[in-house]
Amino acid sequence: MNIVRDKSEYHRQTAERMEKHFVVPAWTKRQKLALAGRILGMEGHDSGLAGQLSARAEKPGTYYMLRFGLGLEEATPDNLLLVDDDLNVLEGDGMPNPSNRFHLWIYRAKPHVHAIMHTHPPHVSALSMIGVPLKPAHMDTSMFYEDCAWLPEWPGTPIGDEEGRLISEAIGDKRAILLAHHGQLAACGTIEEAAVLSLFIERAAKLQLMAMRAGTIKDVKPELAREAHDYRLKPRAVGATFYYYARRALRNDPDAGLFSVPAGTPRQRTASR
Amino acid sequence: MNIVRDKSEYHRQTAERMEKHFVVPAWTKRQKLALAGRILGMEGHDSGLAGQLSARAEKPGTYYMLRFGLGLEEATPDNLLLVDDDLNVLEGDGMPNPSNRFHLWIYRAKPHVHAIMHTHPPHVSALSMIGVPLKPAHMDTSMFYEDCAWLPEWPGTPIGDEEGRLISEAIGDKRAILLAHHGQLAACGTIEEAAVLSLFIERAAKLQLMAMRAGTIKDVKPELAREAHDYRLKPRAVGATFYYYARRALRNDPDAGLFSVPAGTPRQRTASR
Amino acid sequence: MNIVRDKSEYHRQTAERMEKHFVVPAWTKRQKLALAGRILGMEGHDSGLAGQLSARAEKPGTYYMLRFGLGLEEATPDNLLLVDDDLNVLEGDGMPNPSNRFHLWIYRAKPHVHAIMHTHPPHVSALSMIGVPLKPAHMDTSMFYEDCAWLPEWPGTPIGDEEGRLISEAIGDKRAILLAHHGQLAACGTIEEAAVLSLFIERAAKLQLMAMRAGTIKDVKPELAREAHDYRLKPRAVGATFYYYARRALRNDPDAGLFSVPAGTPRQRTASR
Amino acid sequence: MNIVRDKSEYHRQTAERMEKHFVVPAWTKRQKLALAGRILGMEGHDSGLAGQLSARAEKPGTYYMLRFGLGLEEATPDNLLLVDDDLNVLEGDGMPNPSNRFHLWIYRAKPHVHAIMHTHPPHVSALSMIGVPLKPAHMDTSMFYEDCAWLPEWPGTPIGDEEGRLISEAIGDKRAILLAHHGQLAACGTIEEAAVLSLFIERAAKLQLMAMRAGTIKDVKPELAREAHDYRLKPRAVGATFYYYARRALRNDPDAGLFSVPAGTPRQRTASR
Repeated sequence: MNIVRDKSEYHRQTAERMEKHFVVPAWTKRQKLALAGRILGMEGHDSGLAGQLSARAEKPGTYYMLRFGLGLEEATPDNLLLVDDDLNVLEGDGMPNPSNRFHLWIYRAKPHVHAIMHTHPPHVSALSMIGVPLKPAHMDTSMFYEDCAWLPEWPGTPIGDEEGRLISEAIGDKRAILLAHHGQLAACGTIEEAAVLSLFIERAAKLQLMAMRAGTIKDVKPELAREAHDYRLKPRAVGATFYYYARRALRNDPDAGLFSVPAGTPRQRTASR
Repeated sequence: MNIVRDKSEYHRQTAERMEKHFVVPAWTKRQKLALAGRILGMEGHDSGLAGQLSARAEKPGTYYMLRFGLGLEEATPDNLLLVDDDLNVLEGDGMPNPSNRFHLWIYRAKPHVHAIMHTHPPHVSALSMIGVPLKPAHMDTSMFYEDCAWLPEWPGTPIGDEEGRLISEAIGDKRAILLAHHGQLAACGTIEEAAVLSLFIERAAKLQLMAMRAGTIKDVKPELAREAHDYRLKPRAVGATFYYYARRALRNDPDAGLFSVPAGTPRQRTASR
Repeated sequence: MNIVRDKSEYHRQTAERMEKHFVVPAWTKRQKLALAGRILGMEGHDSGLAGQLSARAEKPGTYYMLRFGLGLEEATPDNLLLVDDDLNVLEGDGMPNPSNRFHLWIYRAKPHVHAIMHTHPPHVSALSMIGVPLKPAHMDTSMFYEDCAWLPEWPGTPIGDEEGRLISEAIGDKRAILLAHHGQLAACGTIEEAAVLSLFIERAAKLQLMAMRAGTIKDVKPELAREAHDYRLKPRAVGATFYYYARRALRNDPDAGLFSVPAGTPRQRTASR
Repeated sequence: MNIVRDKSEYHRQTAERMEKHFVVPAWTKRQKLALAGRILGMEGHDSGLAGQLSARAEKPGTYYMLRFGLGLEEATPDNLLLVDDDLNVLEGDGMPNPSNRFHLWIYRAKPHVHAIMHTHPPHVSALSMIGVPLKPAHMDTSMFYEDCAWLPEWPGTPIGDEEGRLISEAIGDKRAILLAHHGQLAACGTIEEAAVLSLFIERAAKLQLMAMRAGTIKDVKPELAREAHDYRLKPRAVGATFYYYARRALRNDPDAGLFSVPAGTPRQRTASR
């Protein structure tokens, strides 16, 4: 017998069940940021040494960053740098990527941003060369619907302050941005969300390029896209997605032990800062 | 010396030989459904946590489903959920994907359907964005000839009943459907067939996209496509294909033991419910 | 100081050096055919259970073939079948692919053919759907220059005699053929050559599709293409190429021992029947 | 608080920090050349036995080269050949690729060139077929901006002297060249730079082909591209990039021990000849 209920009831029920069932390990920030690196490395986001991940550290005005010279997949909780808001190293060996300066501009301007992931994966890179913004037209990429900005001019090697100002302004209050001739950037409230958006913007660019070559991409209905956008970005769904990719990245990884949580630590039910 | 016989004789001989030689392990439903997950995961059908596999369980009105939050390749016979026809969990820990509600609509409307596999692999996803139905024009994808429906409008996040009604109607009496802005679904008489169709619809979409970009796809002759459709869907051929991909998925898999069949269990000669 | 010599001298010198340095293991036919399966499997030629490899066996009118139901990469010297020229099994368990009947037509018509490899790899398959013959326009694919036929009509599921007659006629005296809506076939004097041509026709189709999408393929000069064709098909070069891919396929393969040659067996300097 | 400094200050600071932090192992030339082979092999530059890597050896007029018949990824410090400037083998077993003759023409004409890497990777190969030069329009491929030549006519199988003369002239004083119907060549002052350019020209061709299929590639501003070109080619950045790919190639490689540097050897801070 077909039971028919109002969709709002299913949304409520889903939220309740996710609250109960989507629990994730209580990783530290260092663990999460290093996991994000391994996940993005596993998924082909590397382009030589390009790509920078950062997160606000516990003390205001300090940040965790990957060490410049390491690949994304080489990140561990221990080899991250702690830097101040002029990129001076407070803890750790090595230097941050000088391009991380534009992260600082975003953090200063947007207190709600706690993690920034910037990579140059291949499909985002190719899309960034033809002067076309991201067009999310698939359910799985709906988190970018009305939530991905576009910087149409490349300001050059982004190691200065001007690039920071430009990118920070261009992203506005959106979570993501496509940077012409350059790559993608996700600036989010949590490490998990920034990592998941980085994964899916590359998928969105891949689907867009494949579809554009073979035909014309059809629009989705705005109200449905907005509903899907919000559904996909539920913190529990984002946390469970991050946890899934983390398990994939760590399966058979000799460093897996560095990412385990001490026994007795309560697991958490949501992505947290 | 060239012997020439009527083709019908070769069809008869082939059926006889397959009957004798194509034997497969007597896996349980739980084992088969989990194997289907591992096969589809291995072949790139994952898109975060999207993708849902289900099968009718032994008791009418109950179903095996993957646990929401696990990747396709993480399925085991033991971590599947047994749910009732309102998605309440009867056995197992966790929640089913709330989108599995549309599976229920199909099972209720189509008693011949015993397994449903729904995934968002990349080529199917890209094809689903340009308003073009699947065009099977290769011998290996002939199982979709006149056997793949098309839902041209995306009804939004499919966690409600309306989506179930729409998809169930749109698939009609076909085995497969391409869902606009969304993915693919195979609704079949056996787990093996649903898994094999899911694999090959992604291959069909990939070939179609590659061919469309470089030229115009030529039509195949309908009577030859229909003959190939029936040949490809012989239960013994489908069972042997599933068995081959299962061996690939289990080669070197530390969980392989979970999929072994007790010694003395008779092997079966055909895909069965 | 730049020394300048006539190119014919370099051709002579190269032939001499290859004669001396390009030695390969003295594998048996069974070993070579199984290696060919593993190489093609490793390089993505699988399409479910489609794809058939065969070679003339020692006794006239008998052939080695893969067992139907096994994947290309599962071939071993021991699990090959020995069949007669009506596909009846003389040695081994199981059945040959009934489509191997068209191999028999080719062997009967062309005494110089000792090995046939027929696969449905993805780029060849996509190219086969748009009514365009193979256009080899790269040095590495010059072995197909004026040496790849084209069957523009798909005769249907090729398990009968009519398909054998058609394909055998269409290939004529060429080494390879592109089969519309179907795949590729290489019919050669040695197992090594058939395997290497199968690898490179897929590469040729991939390059052609990539190039066609982005522009118009330029012609190469016929006399240069013919020179490269002959250079690439030198038996020693083909043998060394096969040996290289065999090493790749066997590296870390638990079955590698099945492909070793008894100590004391003289290594051979050329691809042989 | 947003600090704003002149970009030249950041360039200076970056150079200083790289000088201090980007240290690399003091590999021998043999180790570096074999590592380059493994890196390029890992990144899909193989095309059968095509592809040749060479470097000036310690004694003038002598060169290290891969042994013809080995795949790129099979190179070790010990299996390299030492040859004279007529391709006669001075140390090692086997023969060099006869096409390496055109390397000799480049070395003779360009004393600043110390390493040459020539490969036929798939995207470069496809691009080479359509009569279009490389168009670097992404920050990560800016090392080719005004620094990649184009040979629009294929001179045939390049085992003679005429091909050497043509390629040597066509490359002029640039670091790289795209060879019609053939592949790519990087001729650089260090092994590290030649390897990194070979990796990134394939990436440039891939991005170009993907972008060309979906739209029109936008130009970058020349002065910004030139700044990025110089930034990317800083010897320390090139050395660190090579080191990163070397770590990737050696991770889990059973031959890794062949590439270790004796304890006590000072690590070096820059790519050196």
